[in-house]
Amino acid sequence: MKPEQILELDAVVHTPIRLAILSILTGVESADFTFLKKTINTTDGNLSTHLSKLEEAGYITITKSFKGKRPLTTCSISETGRKAFLLYINQLEQIIKMQKS
Amino acid sequence: MKPEQILELDAVVHTPIRLAILSILTGVESADFTFLKKTINTTDGNLSTHLSKLEEAGYITITKSFKGKRPLTTCSISETGRKAFLLYINQLEQIIKMQKS
Repeated sequence: MKPEQILELDAVVHTPIRLAILSILTGVESADFTFLKKTINTTDGNLSTHLSKLEEAGYITITKSFKGKRPLTTCSISETGRKAFLLYINQLEQIIKMQKS
Repeated sequence: MKPEQILELDAVVHTPIRLAILSILTGVESADFTFLKKTINTTDGNLSTHLSKLEEAGYITITKSFKGKRPLTTCSISETGRKAFLLYINQLEQIIKMQKS
């Protein structure tokens, strides 16, 4: 990888909070909004914004339902999202290799 | 590393163009503005903005001189910048390990 190829990193994945979300979602079948919010330690508004961005990119699916009378928002990573995430991780590895060579 | 620690990534280094600049500067004693611009394939304005940001953070030093009658802007990474960059690369490695474990 050449330094200029760093500019090809997927901007949807690269933002730290979205990287954290995808990183959590790759390891589980699904995660609910409250769990993500607590784990990432962010606000409702900020988490919503970034989940929407990931959904728009087709990287996650968001399901809204109810748990008893309380609304439940569940997120899971899509195949497209998983591929984008793995490609990103692969590019990070190339960046590291470039530094160590 | 836990997913939420991704949010601790140094925002000054994390922006792709700045990551590319630091990545180039770690490998050389210094690089001039034109070289960086051509290598990263960006505009004067964009490169200037990000070089200033790196300079403000104390990560690079910028020297302005003349080569004959033409102004010459030379950049080099500082010790602080090198440490920040290495820490960042180390954090990337942790992110990758987290994914592979």
